Amino acid sequence: METVVSGIRPTGDLHLGNYFGAVKSFLQMQHEYNCYFFIADWHSLTTHPKPEDIVKNAEGVLATYLACGIDPEVSTIYIQSDVKEVLELYLYLNMNAYLGELERTTTFKDKARKQPNNVNAGLLTYPTLMAADILQHKAVKVPVGKDQEQNMEMARKFARRFNNIYDTDLFPEPASFTYAKEAIKIPGLDGSGKMGKSEGNCIYLIDDAKTIRKKVMKAVTDAGPATPNSEKPEVIENLFTFLDIVSSKDTYEYFDEKWNNCSIRYGDLKKQLAEDIVAFNAPIREKILDYKANTELLEKVAKLGAEKARESANKTLDEVRKIIGFHKI
Amino acid sequence: METVVSGIRPTGDLHLGNYFGAVKSFLQMQHEYNCYFFIADWHSLTTHPKPEDIVKNAEGVLATYLACGIDPEVSTIYIQSDVKEVLELYLYLNMNAYLGELERTTTFKDKARKQPNNVNAGLLTYPTLMAADILQHKAVKVPVGKDQEQNMEMARKFARRFNNIYDTDLFPEPASFTYAKEAIKIPGLDGSGKMGKSEGNCIYLIDDAKTIRKKVMKAVTDAGPATPNSEKPEVIENLFTFLDIVSSKDTYEYFDEKWNNCSIRYGDLKKQLAEDIVAFNAPIREKILDYKANTELLEKVAKLGAEKARESANKTLDEVRKIIGFHKI
Repeated sequence: METVVSGIRPTGDLHLGNYFGAVKSFLQMQHEYNCYFFIADWHSLTTHPKPEDIVKNAEGVLATYLACGIDPEVSTIYIQSDVKEVLELYLYLNMNAYLGELERTTTFKDKARKQPNNVNAGLLTYPTLMAADILQHKAVKVPVGKDQEQNMEMARKFARRFNNIYDTDLFPEPASFTYAKEAIKIPGLDGSGKMGKSEGNCIYLIDDAKTIRKKVMKAVTDAGPATPNSEKPEVIENLFTFLDIVSSKDTYEYFDEKWNNCSIRYGDLKKQLAEDIVAFNAPIREKILDYKANTELLEKVAKLGAEKARESANKTLDEVRKIIGFHKI
Repeated sequence: METVVSGIRPTGDLHLGNYFGAVKSFLQMQHEYNCYFFIADWHSLTTHPKPEDIVKNAEGVLATYLACGIDPEVSTIYIQSDVKEVLELYLYLNMNAYLGELERTTTFKDKARKQPNNVNAGLLTYPTLMAADILQHKAVKVPVGKDQEQNMEMARKFARRFNNIYDTDLFPEPASFTYAKEAIKIPGLDGSGKMGKSEGNCIYLIDDAKTIRKKVMKAVTDAGPATPNSEKPEVIENLFTFLDIVSSKDTYEYFDEKWNNCSIRYGDLKKQLAEDIVAFNAPIREKILDYKANTELLEKVAKLGAEKARESANKTLDEVRKIIGFHKI
């Protein structure tokens, strides 16, 4: 079984975009691959989170993963900071990561531009820590979005370089990987673009019915179709994308026909869409709240995940240490 | 008792310069301070040592420390890579170490110039790893040479910055520290400058009598004094510095008088000096060889040191994690 690693920075609650863009495919992947899903709390430090948020956010993601159906007995779900082993590989990779290539990565340049007073070494070495996250499990596939493609290229480069320097084939080169049929781009409700935390246009899995209704009813629309069977503008297409995802086929076709014969009433569409999102969200939301309240269980799950991840990491590290020349005590 | 931390990069055997410049003062310090003497094998990676040398070099330094009289029951002697805890602090410090200040350090610029094809992130973050080495034990004093003064300034800055960001007084600012009366600059035998591995002008503690005699006899001299009581040129002064360190007072005065009345014969001086160095080195050399042959004992000492160092590091890390916002599992 091939090994897959995927991390998520715990910077807040997960939204429908996270669900349909990533988590839903994890549910399938966990039965087809040897999966490591980790919560990247150390990575979140590059942007200096508040101390009181770190554990809360990590536990929130953990609760959400479980609520969505990721099975901790099947996959390995762990919190990054519970597996200290990755830091040793991080150090070793830093020794062969060149300043120039690190400074040239787009994610570094973007963040350096956004926080010019805090261009720190953690930010610079983000790609080496990310490579260590992946390589410690010898993952061959990593499901990532387009924005992480360059960092994946770095991870492959670091793997290749280590193998070359020490004349070994220890690390496989991890391939970026899209679960094509599942990769649906979830639009925002503000009319354009993608649903995203930083866009402020999200419906969170933990939103209650009232919040969802309010958000959906505020979605941007237009004046309505002027001629039958006209092409839908982006804002309207986005609403239909949502219907396609969460509503029944009948509902979708009903409103599609209304659009085509110019009798559509956006208020009705939004009301129906809101109820369908509420119906989709409700069971997940309930489970998230249950898990969040059950700290004992979350800790048990985190511990189980950490044990499995540490076993895998230590196996790789033992080989790495031997290759570099360190003895074991 | 104040805490002192001192590390040495295990890049080869120790020489007389190391002994009189550092190790000798450790012998006294270990009774006056809570001392951590560590062998910085991870730091040595920045210059890419051969795999087969790493353990050998670390064990060589450990054997030499013991042979010189550092007592593992009194001090904590450990190998850096046995105390993984330092890497977590290294990561945290990296998150608040700015690229600009790291790039401006002289040690970085020097090494970057010497190895332009390998300006790596390990080299850049040398000062954060060094700061972590020190701060994990909350050391208040660090005996360092002038070349490390800027890195010490960085360690103080990182300590201060952490304290400021998290509104705490966790880390004391470590002071650079010279054991003044012991800080003798040991000259090389090539006539000028300091004894140093990279200068190739060293007498190693492990050198045998024959090697020492050969090295001393080849020491640079001059044509001899032209007028009585003239000032000694540097090459000659260096030989007298050696006499001062390893020979008896009578010997020193005997040759000093010969110099002053212009009857000195350098061959005689060198012969005497060589014998006195041989006499000084012999017992240390013998013990180094004994310890080196006793791998079991070395491992026991390393294990004891690692346990003590890990206890100290974990105590600090627990506080650091709590302050940053990480829970403990």
